[in-house]
Amino acid sequence: MAATRASGTNAVRYGTMRENVVNLTVVLSDGRVIRTRSRAKKSSAGYDLTGLFVGQEGTLGIITEVTVRLYGIPEVMAAATCSFPTVEAAVDTVIQTIQMGIPISRVELLDDRAIEAVNAYSKLTLPVTPTLFFEFAGSQSGVEEQAAIVEELAKGEGASNWRWSTDADERSKLWQARHDIHWAIRALRPGAKGWGTDVCVPISALAEVIREVRKETSQQSFGTTLVGHVGDGNFHLGMQIDPDDPVEWAKANEINDRMVKHAIRLGGTCTGEHGVGIGKMKFMREEHGEALDVMHLIKNALDPKGIFNPGKVLPEETRQAAE
Amino acid sequence: MAATRASGTNAVRYGTMRENVVNLTVVLSDGRVIRTRSRAKKSSAGYDLTGLFVGQEGTLGIITEVTVRLYGIPEVMAAATCSFPTVEAAVDTVIQTIQMGIPISRVELLDDRAIEAVNAYSKLTLPVTPTLFFEFAGSQSGVEEQAAIVEELAKGEGASNWRWSTDADERSKLWQARHDIHWAIRALRPGAKGWGTDVCVPISALAEVIREVRKETSQQSFGTTLVGHVGDGNFHLGMQIDPDDPVEWAKANEINDRMVKHAIRLGGTCTGEHGVGIGKMKFMREEHGEALDVMHLIKNALDPKGIFNPGKVLPEETRQAAE
Repeated sequence: MAATRASGTNAVRYGTMRENVVNLTVVLSDGRVIRTRSRAKKSSAGYDLTGLFVGQEGTLGIITEVTVRLYGIPEVMAAATCSFPTVEAAVDTVIQTIQMGIPISRVELLDDRAIEAVNAYSKLTLPVTPTLFFEFAGSQSGVEEQAAIVEELAKGEGASNWRWSTDADERSKLWQARHDIHWAIRALRPGAKGWGTDVCVPISALAEVIREVRKETSQQSFGTTLVGHVGDGNFHLGMQIDPDDPVEWAKANEINDRMVKHAIRLGGTCTGEHGVGIGKMKFMREEHGEALDVMHLIKNALDPKGIFNPGKVLPEETRQAAE
Repeated sequence: MAATRASGTNAVRYGTMRENVVNLTVVLSDGRVIRTRSRAKKSSAGYDLTGLFVGQEGTLGIITEVTVRLYGIPEVMAAATCSFPTVEAAVDTVIQTIQMGIPISRVELLDDRAIEAVNAYSKLTLPVTPTLFFEFAGSQSGVEEQAAIVEELAKGEGASNWRWSTDADERSKLWQARHDIHWAIRALRPGAKGWGTDVCVPISALAEVIREVRKETSQQSFGTTLVGHVGDGNFHLGMQIDPDDPVEWAKANEINDRMVKHAIRLGGTCTGEHGVGIGKMKFMREEHGEALDVMHLIKNALDPKGIFNPGKVLPEETRQAAE
């Protein structure tokens, strides 16, 4: 996995982080310590405890060791960026890229407002339109071929300003907007509180969810930016809220609610990366239906006294249904 | 995933079958029906129930629907075979291939006895040595490049008789030995009962486990063959037992026991693909330690009356420890 802090996780080449966890050491609520599985690449020996403990947010056990899968550093890496007339055109390019089996390492989307923010913050002059950032890896001829195909697909969707490089310095420059976006968003409205939320949908539904949420956010007093791990159908919405303005808080809350419910209706999830914590608990029943009761059963079985991260992930009001 | 019946599952390019299950519909022991997760590519919304229900062998719930990830048919596919002086040389070639990040679709190993069997059954004239069967996918130049690198790696390990093709008929011929192996093994000893067992180890330990088991099997009255999904560190041992000879049964049992315990000692698992059922239950404690108790807790929580596939996967004698 590429090690830049802006990498997010793109499932295209390397799989999700979940898929790259080989095994875990976990302390249970009664003090016992277990290893979730062996180091073998695949196993059919009983229940998959590794998957169960990844993403449980400390509610089932405390993870004290993680074994992850490693990847060699590719012979050649290439970066590319290009500008699109619409979010739909950018998403369609990514869909076609994946369908053709091009093994891109990363592909990230910034919307026009995110580009505007990063132009101001990082003194860039990128066209203020939805923009994709690609990373390719492989042999010299492999990355050239991948990039040439993606360029053609992008141009077929009306993209312009295609730029690419295999040089390390040039690659950093091409990705600078993506790397700086966190700080650029924070600088948009000094003193504001950033509210970050994420959803993940089947990639075929991604453009629709983004379109709807942008319709709403365009009418607000506060700035909003959208950063997408578009290869996964996952994106982050950042809203810059005045911490002293209850109307803005309420509005942001409403936007988040509507976006999440829309994502769930389209076969998606209330959170792709951030996790549930407290904020997304209220969507758990809607997303999981009676599967939520199974989560309660597991929680009760593994942590019967409820000592691990109480009040998180599983909403208390649905616990009874499971008992 | 390639659709030949001999494909097994090679995790190199497409991941394991487990990783290609998007979600499941499951009937629970109380009659409720759940969907394990959304169709989003990644989710952090609660516990991973999909992973829990894949491989539970009907002991936690009855799976009635499976959504799997699909892959496009590659532009070009290539097959290659080559012969190695030793199993170690073959395994080392595969390790180097994976470490270089070559995205092979499949790589399969037949040992010399398996080659002998298939030469006889399918009237082939392959050199009677450990043999690898590769499959590559991608663009024309991509598969050529992949194959050229692997050929070089193989020759560095003393391989000979490298043959490859992108033509569909030729590819089938190259893989014929692999495709026919099941029937070739059965034909080795007419009337015999085939005992198939599998283990999976970290690939660095694969050659050692194979060497040890071959030492033992070479002294037996019955024939044994070895077929490996070598990219995963997983292999199948087939023993052709006289069903009326208790000495042969006992010996096969002993060989299986020793191989499994050796695999577990080296960080592996008692079964990569076959599952636990009844036969591998006795190794569950040794492989999982106290993690087996967690499996019991989950079983008791989800199927408190023990109505789902009773007596399988989790050994009864360890259940008390979990209660």
